[in-house]
Amino acid sequence: MRPPPVGDGSVRAAYAWLSRAVEPGHRAMWAYVSAEGAVDVAAQLHAGEGPVVLQRAVGARVGSDDSVRDLHRAERAAVRLLIPGDSDWPGDALWPMQQVAADGDLDCVPPLSLWVRGAGSLPSLLARSIAIVGARASTPYGEQVTHQLAAELAERGVCVVSGGAFGIDAAAHRAALSAGRPTIAVLACGADRAYPKANEALLDRISRDGLLLSEWPPGAAPMRQRFLVRNRLIAGLTAGTVVVEAALRSGARSTASRARDLGKPVMAVPGPVTSAMSAGTLAMLRAGGCIAVGSAAHVLDAIGRIGDDLAPHEAGPSEPIDELDPQTQAVYDAVPLRRASPIESIATVAALAVSDAVAAMSVLELLGLVEVDEGRWRKTRQDQKQR
Amino acid sequence: MRPPPVGDGSVRAAYAWLSRAVEPGHRAMWAYVSAEGAVDVAAQLHAGEGPVVLQRAVGARVGSDDSVRDLHRAERAAVRLLIPGDSDWPGDALWPMQQVAADGDLDCVPPLSLWVRGAGSLPSLLARSIAIVGARASTPYGEQVTHQLAAELAERGVCVVSGGAFGIDAAAHRAALSAGRPTIAVLACGADRAYPKANEALLDRISRDGLLLSEWPPGAAPMRQRFLVRNRLIAGLTAGTVVVEAALRSGARSTASRARDLGKPVMAVPGPVTSAMSAGTLAMLRAGGCIAVGSAAHVLDAIGRIGDDLAPHEAGPSEPIDELDPQTQAVYDAVPLRRASPIESIATVAALAVSDAVAAMSVLELLGLVEVDEGRWRKTRQDQKQR
Repeated sequence: MRPPPVGDGSVRAAYAWLSRAVEPGHRAMWAYVSAEGAVDVAAQLHAGEGPVVLQRAVGARVGSDDSVRDLHRAERAAVRLLIPGDSDWPGDALWPMQQVAADGDLDCVPPLSLWVRGAGSLPSLLARSIAIVGARASTPYGEQVTHQLAAELAERGVCVVSGGAFGIDAAAHRAALSAGRPTIAVLACGADRAYPKANEALLDRISRDGLLLSEWPPGAAPMRQRFLVRNRLIAGLTAGTVVVEAALRSGARSTASRARDLGKPVMAVPGPVTSAMSAGTLAMLRAGGCIAVGSAAHVLDAIGRIGDDLAPHEAGPSEPIDELDPQTQAVYDAVPLRRASPIESIATVAALAVSDAVAAMSVLELLGLVEVDEGRWRKTRQDQKQR
Repeated sequence: MRPPPVGDGSVRAAYAWLSRAVEPGHRAMWAYVSAEGAVDVAAQLHAGEGPVVLQRAVGARVGSDDSVRDLHRAERAAVRLLIPGDSDWPGDALWPMQQVAADGDLDCVPPLSLWVRGAGSLPSLLARSIAIVGARASTPYGEQVTHQLAAELAERGVCVVSGGAFGIDAAAHRAALSAGRPTIAVLACGADRAYPKANEALLDRISRDGLLLSEWPPGAAPMRQRFLVRNRLIAGLTAGTVVVEAALRSGARSTASRARDLGKPVMAVPGPVTSAMSAGTLAMLRAGGCIAVGSAAHVLDAIGRIGDDLAPHEAGPSEPIDELDPQTQAVYDAVPLRRASPIESIATVAALAVSDAVAAMSVLELLGLVEVDEGRWRKTRQDQKQR
């Protein structure tokens, strides 16, 4: 006999029930719902039926049903539940499915559903997005670099995604908002909750100008384990992850690891090796598979969306002397600065035949680097740098 | 007819003559001397004979012979000329010969001879050596890190080799000396000259406690081109090159490139991306083939001489909670801090069966992380960190 459906029998109520019944990031649950559909899976598990591994995951929540209450509570808090099939469901395109299949025990499973607060369109924001994450106990250096990176990326139309925490996360969100661009905070608690409390005004502003996302139903508490599960979501929804500052042990590094698991670019901002808050990024750079970035151009280069964004080739200011062939350089070096010399002496100093020195000198004269005075040569005043 | 020998006809005079006649780092010269011997090559070129390419390199110096004068001048300045065959000639082992053959146009040719000031044994110092180079216009950060790195490496018996310049070079030499260890400065001018002048006292001290090296004869001036030629020598003589700070265009980066050409480890110390003096190391890290280092242990790990030096595995301080399996962690997270809860409520919060929660709780109690009071559980006071 088919068990009775949960809530009002709708697909949305089924997803609401599932989001409370089992902690997100559960591979078997995701696979089973993908195969059987949310309505049937919720009904089975609610009735104490279905695969044993999922029954065990539901645990003490079997038989309870807060789905309709959660949906109403969400509505009152201007939170909506996005589910597969909704027009603004981000879709599976962002989440490399081959990784989901291949990674076995890793928790890189896509979300079942997403509780969303804010009016923006999730798919269009995520289409061009970057995760910028880092230490809560950030330094002024880290905050300055975060602000610079996030503001410039936001100005170039890249949506900055972070975790809404103190420190680097908050700096990234604030920079995007200060650039007048939407930003997304992915939370480890209900989208109606302000955590950390001190970021309440910031989170409110994000919900007005961007989006707050959560896999947990309204009211859910930010429990320790949920941050790691949430981190995979930050990595999975974005085109790449930038870690600005991180201690050796850090949640930001877990986000970076999930990005790598998902085959997405992982970036780290180097910092002083004397700073504990840059020890994590140094370890990332040393471990390999991580790109050092110092500018928005570097980040755009790594996520490689559009050709125009490619980081410009970097070179210091070029000096004409550096462009010369070695023989001409040797002659230039042999030309005195003050007291002018005859070409024969200069050839001797440069260890060249006089004919070669004459040829080189004509090039230098054309470039305005040397001047002749009664058959004797000296450097012109404009370039007196040695070495 | 065989041309008359230069100087006093000795091999040393021939090398002395060659070191003045042709700029060092000349591939064809090195190959020809290796094949024909210094005495014959010097005699030929002095007489205006020999391969045309070498005659052209000798240029206006043909016919002049300062070899004996240079050797005397060296002696007066406590400088000696090391040549192949001398017991303290560093030998070819340090310089990967296959690279010399393979690199074509690159200037990674070994030295013909070396003018040396100081009493130390060059081969024994170089047997365990590292190049630490960087910007002349260094920052306090770069100098601090250089001092830390160089002092610790010197204390561990690694000879610090640098270029005797202002900034990072000087900081590296000073750190080694302050650790009571010899250091080597490889100069782009005669080993009897103090360049830069302001480093005269430092260079004198290096010559007493370490070595000054040069490919150029006494009195030779530090001409622009010579620094690049000298840089290949720093890279070639050492087990690896560390760049501490460098602008985008920098001599230190040329040293690093030569180290890479020679198949030796290239290392860069990350710095603030906001610092122009760390732009060069950032570019090196971004280009790849370069190891980020922040400590002497990292450097020793890269040059990999002895197992004891290997960098310790790095991890942050471990907390007992981090070692728990996910289910036990979930239960721990669900245990209240202040008002104790019955196991059934905790199981519901943790989304677990009561039997699983009971099992997990017994682990937590054994670890002293939770305490029970009249059948209700709370966290012990010792760990109140959230997340």
